[in-house]
Amino acid sequence: LEKDHLKRLLEDLSKGKVSVEKAMAELKDLPFEDLGFACVDHHRHLRRGLSEVIFGEGKEPGDILAIMESMLKRDERILITRLSQNKADIILNKFPQAVYHKRARLLILDSMPLKVSGRGTIVVISAGTSDMPVAEEAALTARFMGNEVETIYDVGVSGIHRVLAHRGDLGKASVIIVVAGMEGALPSVVGGLVDKPVIAVPTSVGYGASFGGITALLGMLNSCASGVTVVNIDNGFGAGYAASVINRQ
Amino acid sequence: LEKDHLKRLLEDLSKGKVSVEKAMAELKDLPFEDLGFACVDHHRHLRRGLSEVIFGEGKEPGDILAIMESMLKRDERILITRLSQNKADIILNKFPQAVYHKRARLLILDSMPLKVSGRGTIVVISAGTSDMPVAEEAALTARFMGNEVETIYDVGVSGIHRVLAHRGDLGKASVIIVVAGMEGALPSVVGGLVDKPVIAVPTSVGYGASFGGITALLGMLNSCASGVTVVNIDNGFGAGYAASVINRQ
Amino acid sequence: LEKDHLKRLLEDLSKGKVSVEKAMAELKDLPFEDLGFACVDHHRHLRRGLSEVIFGEGKEPGDILAIMESMLKRDERILITRLSQNKADIILNKFPQAVYHKRARLLILDSMPLKVSGRGTIVVISAGTSDMPVAEEAALTARFMGNEVETIYDVGVSGIHRVLAHRGDLGKASVIIVVAGMEGALPSVVGGLVDKPVIAVPTSVGYGASFGGITALLGMLNSCASGVTVVNIDNGFGAGYAASVINRQ
Amino acid sequence: LEKDHLKRLLEDLSKGKVSVEKAMAELKDLPFEDLGFACVDHHRHLRRGLSEVIFGEGKEPGDILAIMESMLKRDERILITRLSQNKADIILNKFPQAVYHKRARLLILDSMPLKVSGRGTIVVISAGTSDMPVAEEAALTARFMGNEVETIYDVGVSGIHRVLAHRGDLGKASVIIVVAGMEGALPSVVGGLVDKPVIAVPTSVGYGASFGGITALLGMLNSCASGVTVVNIDNGFGAGYAASVINRQ
Amino acid sequence: LEKDHLKRLLEDLSKGKVSVEKAMAELKDLPFEDLGFACVDHHRHLRRGLSEVIFGEGKEPGDILAIMESMLKRDERILITRLSQNKADIILNKFPQAVYHKRARLLILDSMPLKVSGRGTIVVISAGTSDMPVAEEAALTARFMGNEVETIYDVGVSGIHRVLAHRGDLGKASVIIVVAGMEGALPSVVGGLVDKPVIAVPTSVGYGASFGGITALLGMLNSCASGVTVVNIDNGFGAGYAASVINRQ
Amino acid sequence: LEKDHLKRLLEDLSKGKVSVEKAMAELKDLPFEDLGFACVDHHRHLRRGLSEVIFGEGKEPGDILAIMESMLKRDERILITRLSQNKADIILNKFPQAVYHKRARLLILDSMPLKVSGRGTIVVISAGTSDMPVAEEAALTARFMGNEVETIYDVGVSGIHRVLAHRGDLGKASVIIVVAGMEGALPSVVGGLVDKPVIAVPTSVGYGASFGGITALLGMLNSCASGVTVVNIDNGFGAGYAASVINRQ
Amino acid sequence: LEKDHLKRLLEDLSKGKVSVEKAMAELKDLPFEDLGFACVDHHRHLRRGLSEVIFGEGKEPGDILAIMESMLKRDERILITRLSQNKADIILNKFPQAVYHKRARLLILDSMPLKVSGRGTIVVISAGTSDMPVAEEAALTARFMGNEVETIYDVGVSGIHRVLAHRGDLGKASVIIVVAGMEGALPSVVGGLVDKPVIAVPTSVGYGASFGGITALLGMLNSCASGVTVVNIDNGFGAGYAASVINRQ
Amino acid sequence: LEKDHLKRLLEDLSKGKVSVEKAMAELKDLPFEDLGFACVDHHRHLRRGLSEVIFGEGKEPGDILAIMESMLKRDERILITRLSQNKADIILNKFPQAVYHKRARLLILDSMPLKVSGRGTIVVISAGTSDMPVAEEAALTARFMGNEVETIYDVGVSGIHRVLAHRGDLGKASVIIVVAGMEGALPSVVGGLVDKPVIAVPTSVGYGASFGGITALLGMLNSCASGVTVVNIDNGFGAGYAASVINRQ
Repeated sequence: LEKDHLKRLLEDLSKGKVSVEKAMAELKDLPFEDLGFACVDHHRHLRRGLSEVIFGEGKEPGDILAIMESMLKRDERILITRLSQNKADIILNKFPQAVYHKRARLLILDSMPLKVSGRGTIVVISAGTSDMPVAEEAALTARFMGNEVETIYDVGVSGIHRVLAHRGDLGKASVIIVVAGMEGALPSVVGGLVDKPVIAVPTSVGYGASFGGITALLGMLNSCASGVTVVNIDNGFGAGYAASVINRQ
Repeated sequence: LEKDHLKRLLEDLSKGKVSVEKAMAELKDLPFEDLGFACVDHHRHLRRGLSEVIFGEGKEPGDILAIMESMLKRDERILITRLSQNKADIILNKFPQAVYHKRARLLILDSMPLKVSGRGTIVVISAGTSDMPVAEEAALTARFMGNEVETIYDVGVSGIHRVLAHRGDLGKASVIIVVAGMEGALPSVVGGLVDKPVIAVPTSVGYGASFGGITALLGMLNSCASGVTVVNIDNGFGAGYAASVINRQ
Repeated sequence: LEKDHLKRLLEDLSKGKVSVEKAMAELKDLPFEDLGFACVDHHRHLRRGLSEVIFGEGKEPGDILAIMESMLKRDERILITRLSQNKADIILNKFPQAVYHKRARLLILDSMPLKVSGRGTIVVISAGTSDMPVAEEAALTARFMGNEVETIYDVGVSGIHRVLAHRGDLGKASVIIVVAGMEGALPSVVGGLVDKPVIAVPTSVGYGASFGGITALLGMLNSCASGVTVVNIDNGFGAGYAASVINRQ
Repeated sequence: LEKDHLKRLLEDLSKGKVSVEKAMAELKDLPFEDLGFACVDHHRHLRRGLSEVIFGEGKEPGDILAIMESMLKRDERILITRLSQNKADIILNKFPQAVYHKRARLLILDSMPLKVSGRGTIVVISAGTSDMPVAEEAALTARFMGNEVETIYDVGVSGIHRVLAHRGDLGKASVIIVVAGMEGALPSVVGGLVDKPVIAVPTSVGYGASFGGITALLGMLNSCASGVTVVNIDNGFGAGYAASVINRQ
Repeated sequence: LEKDHLKRLLEDLSKGKVSVEKAMAELKDLPFEDLGFACVDHHRHLRRGLSEVIFGEGKEPGDILAIMESMLKRDERILITRLSQNKADIILNKFPQAVYHKRARLLILDSMPLKVSGRGTIVVISAGTSDMPVAEEAALTARFMGNEVETIYDVGVSGIHRVLAHRGDLGKASVIIVVAGMEGALPSVVGGLVDKPVIAVPTSVGYGASFGGITALLGMLNSCASGVTVVNIDNGFGAGYAASVINRQ
Repeated sequence: LEKDHLKRLLEDLSKGKVSVEKAMAELKDLPFEDLGFACVDHHRHLRRGLSEVIFGEGKEPGDILAIMESMLKRDERILITRLSQNKADIILNKFPQAVYHKRARLLILDSMPLKVSGRGTIVVISAGTSDMPVAEEAALTARFMGNEVETIYDVGVSGIHRVLAHRGDLGKASVIIVVAGMEGALPSVVGGLVDKPVIAVPTSVGYGASFGGITALLGMLNSCASGVTVVNIDNGFGAGYAASVINRQ
Repeated sequence: LEKDHLKRLLEDLSKGKVSVEKAMAELKDLPFEDLGFACVDHHRHLRRGLSEVIFGEGKEPGDILAIMESMLKRDERILITRLSQNKADIILNKFPQAVYHKRARLLILDSMPLKVSGRGTIVVISAGTSDMPVAEEAALTARFMGNEVETIYDVGVSGIHRVLAHRGDLGKASVIIVVAGMEGALPSVVGGLVDKPVIAVPTSVGYGASFGGITALLGMLNSCASGVTVVNIDNGFGAGYAASVINRQ
Repeated sequence: LEKDHLKRLLEDLSKGKVSVEKAMAELKDLPFEDLGFACVDHHRHLRRGLSEVIFGEGKEPGDILAIMESMLKRDERILITRLSQNKADIILNKFPQAVYHKRARLLILDSMPLKVSGRGTIVVISAGTSDMPVAEEAALTARFMGNEVETIYDVGVSGIHRVLAHRGDLGKASVIIVVAGMEGALPSVVGGLVDKPVIAVPTSVGYGASFGGITALLGMLNSCASGVTVVNIDNGFGAGYAASVINRQ
């Protein structure tokens, strides 16, 4: 039931062209079409800047190319996450104008760069250099979605003066994404220094009892700093997306 | 070193009232006072509306009363979380003007109710009636911090029409807190319906393989809806606090 | 929109009593009411024999009584699960015609006993006497939902002849619910003997490395017998419910 | 003791061709052959459509070929699960009439396609495209066992309208298999929409805190929708088998 | 089918008193009776000294008394494990000749003390005094089953000379049961000193990361001493039983 | 202090060749040499048939060859466990008389085959063909240590008649090793059929929630059959060794 | 063999009072007595200040009193850990001169207070007030063992200036014990500020995903600050003991 | 602000060369430089022997070379941990004077070998030969930091006399590092023999239920020997570093 279709149905009923029974049956059989058109609108809106992100992991290059072509017909901007170098090469061969960010494993095809629409600056801060792939995924995602993004890397809590030296930048942020592996303590320190939304991203960096990021994840969930929220291990994309939604408010 | 104190020290040095050595010693011995005054400011600001929350669990009533008295001298508003009925009774005996919210286990002593300062409405939505204590903790925290809060309870995903019926309210929210136990699926559905910051709160509601909330926590961390961030199990306070920070932006 | 309400709206429109615009607005504003009536129908159907089950754990007796009164007004049959003796006493005081099954922690208030509607017999088989509370919960639930139910208790795999002695009964069942704690091996043996749907229910019976039923749960999920499906630890109700749905097919 | 063999033994005894002692010895020494013939019958029945499934993982191609040849002598239909491309190539070289389903990692050799014997349609619904290998394994297994199967893919809960759009198909199913990774929420939504047996299959799709499917598994075991039963992670075969047993009832 | 019954059936068939069809039907319907009588014999044998142990946990005193009376009619010896003081008092009231071992939570009713039948001495050695309840359960079980038992308590590995001082006793044992909590290292040391069957029993003694005995259990399963086998956490009974079976060989 | 050395020292003291002080100092400084000779004796005994087993995993071929040469000088029999094909090839090149058992990953170099010294037969029974590597490791270890060993493979509990068909063999065993993956239920069934020491070996066979053998391990630790003891996952060697020690008693 | 006994034996041998054979037999049979006297010496030393600590948990008051009396005969100083108020009352009744530290659950009976022997000051620093019981256990243990101890409480990382304000005290410490629950991040910050041995003590303070201290434990084990070592959850005693051993060096 | 820089600034202010405002701005903008110089001093000190360790895992060879060059300009000694052979080859090509320790995966470039500054000898003792890589990492780290180091390998607790034979060496150590995999029992035995700081390092050596070192880690955390502290799994570097800090005291 498109909105117009619904209107016509009711008009026909009003004019006696269809019986009450037929109108009722049609309404009953297709109740979610009614819901559907609202969702479509909603989704269409999302696509402008935010959505239609392709999760590259576990998809065949052929599948990805097909999705891309379908999107390009609608002039959509394309972001592919967790894409290996191998798959990226196949895609770049077809779409040489795309850009592959190797460390972050992101591919972006964006003919109409989005103008910045977020209210403030999103700061991405990471504890160690090895957390950079996840931090870059967050930063690039947030930029793709139309935000000013600033990055501060390698400021772990065991050299606390490094964190403190950046207090000024943190204070000016509208949202802060904190990326850390190992014990995942950086969000607690950052969350205690500022009064901004802090999104913590645990990474799988570490060994032994870091358990592929579980330790960092648990540490962040138990942060003694109020107001820290957490996303999945290595989920830089999710953090960048959530920060964008907050920054657009 | 208050800022003024620092200025005076430098002026004195400039005027020859103190020696370079003395100035240097004072700066050297108290380097964090310099840092300190910013923090104090920052903290003072926080206290207006947001901070000085007392974690009631594991504190003796006597300890809590002492902290409260010290806070009241500074005319601060008081929020105590995870406070048992027994301890609350002792406190209410001393401060009959305080209000104890039994289900949420919160005590509030707030002589100067904060006027609403948040930009929009924070919606708290929960999956089942048994999630209400955590949902109430979130809602009362957000209200205490100066936000309009709306609550929608008992709308679990196994009766999806109940969620959909509230799509309008969700669409008008500035931040949404989703509280759910068991499989913790509600944030995924809500996150897919709206384009707002969604903070998911897993609860310990369930039995058997719900493992005291671990299942809900994991479900939320793996939400297929982009932009969902998560707090600790049963951490309604943390969700309410984070939502407030976002809403104040 | 009750179904009748919808009909009346459409009739009014057909008769010109309301305008197309007004009808459309009502439909639009309440799109899920539209969905609702289907669900309601569906739910109403469910209630005849299957649904409106009250999860007793974590609900105050007062809450439960209120829900019961609301249900009784609609002449519904009532099943309350996980109800402690204390709460049951309060309820029985108000509704002396109700029956409390202590071991299974179920309360049933059923003025119009359902006539058997399931196609065949549901057999509930348990490994040990200590699994009986869960087995009884499954059996009583299935009976409440209109099924013939047969129970075979205390036939664990360490005395395999006890299982084999009941091969005849198992062969005649339409659905088999297998309840076991500790190593949870009974479903594998039963599943290998018959060609019927087998629903496995792990129980928290055991100690040490039984980890409150996790061992039994994992054992059942890894059953080498094809076609075994599993429910949550101690979830006798869920197994009884699922068996009923299968038996009604 | 084949059934015929047993009959002949008893006839010979009846005719005085063997002594009571010899008959008794034969029965006594092989008591489970006695059991066996029932099982064999049972198994023979199973084989017609259902059984003699070969678990391909961890078996050498030579072993598999030997089993296949032994089965083909008895004119049995063959289903091999979890078979890698490499092993499949070796088998296809020998049996070019076999069909290898790469995505589902299934090989089928089926000279006498089974005519549909299940009562209704089994619907396989999956949350994401990456869940397809498991969903296909379930669908192909159910088809191999003589069922009509319909598949609905890529209808995750974060776009709830996609699920709702298929309510009609779900309502017509006799059994529904729901396949999902990540948070595994789809079975709860589906289970709340319909009144059919729902078999949930968690997949290992996801990363970080999805823990190779544990999160989806736990979510499904804690489903708030009554009547959902669960199989092992990635066990599409088990779900297809269980659905067949239910559908044959 | 008792053995005699089977013989008579075959004789009748041989004599033409029953038809082949009737004989076959009888054999087919009751195939496990044949198995059954063997099992019964086997079980009867077990009962002499070894079996009919009652697991007291989770059984009502009334249930236990009923089982006891049934056993006493057959003049059986009775061992009840994991029996609380409360339940024991009720039983002792009825059977004052029974003996309750409080620390081990065992009740024994044994009018005809078994004469020692084991080949050698079973030594029970424990790491700490707090492991004594489990060690005593093992020792009393082994004694109940007709073994000489010797106990060596409080000889943890952090005072290794205490273990070494008992090398003589260990060398003379036929089976050694090693009981330890915390890090569970004693079996490795004992297993390295002697060339005897070593059964390791982890206990739940400890705190923090001892996780209720998991640490001790894992330590024992990974023992670097060859030939150590392990039972469940706190399962003194199981160790005593297994040691008895070995000692009776 | 070799034994002879000790003797000479005491003789020298007795003859006045050394002073009491010097003897005492020597004894005091080397107290564990004193212990040593006993251990050596003990160890020497072990080596005859039982010990000097080389754990091949994580050792360089060069290291292994060095150890082998040192052992061969003392005419010892050699058993190497967990040896990959690659390393085995290097060793076989040097010692062509050695035998490599590929499936069990064992290499044996045994110029003087041990004559059977165990009292009875050790039976190794496994649930599935994929458990064979572990079962073979157990069987070969037990044979290497001088035992008669019988193997029964592929008799999982989902076809219980297969287990029962071997009841005779099991009844004649002196020790039974039960090898199983997935749900690990076979030891419970076997343990309930016989009155012999049962050593359960969980294997890593399975997928999904089998968690690399954890499920089988837990199932075996919680076996409802008394007297079952357990070794580490995939530890066929440990089971064979423990069975040998029991059988030698 | 006491040292004197050994001497006499050797003297007798030297004088011809015993034969070489007899001396050798005695030495051989009791080799660990020889070891024993060294250990006793060693232990005797330990007791002066350090050892003979009684673990109060799981011991009956009567047992504890007996141990205490035996120790007092040897004029030893007594430290009892993890002692409940109830048990303490019984002990204080008998030994009114003992002192019970309720928060730390320690009882000390120390007629001859130890004079300070540690080289420097041990600093105990804790993150929150609720970590105080564990911190006090550490501090009191270290003081009991003869060390100067300083305590700094409630300086969690979410208010990093509080930690920094104590940099001077930390810099003067010889060993630092860091006590923290929740995310356990304090040791990383402290370990990065100073160049002293840091012993981290995770506490069970927290809720939800703090899992009784596991999160803090894991965080500390993964500390990005080099040189941090860790003890068991809530093991203040162990930290105090280890710090004493380091400080005595 | 270097210390000298600060002094000059204050002198300039004192002499009127800069205004109060400018001085204040410089101090305000760089408040952590003020902190910094202390840290730098502290760090500079650390570098002499202790710090500037490069974590090689997850770094590109190019990144490592750049860091090395920057360090060499400051004449610093270089230690790289967890460096693969491949990366080492690239580095050795550039810096042929560096030494790569393959087993320990350490690269050291140390033109000015440090003279021994630690007070005593650090003893590294390991349970098995397969623990050697971790033990070597600990030993080489401690030597690099200017300590005398002694190593004792392959003295696991299942041959306890091997441990005891080294009691003399252990008694002379100033700090003991105990490295063990599997059940991780060696630290308990060593910790009970000596009165020295014991740092336990769990290794990932083992299989099955050793869970990559978790079992050893848990065993060490629960050591019944007082005073044992623990580092992360396979963290030989951390143990060597912590031992150095203790030994330098």
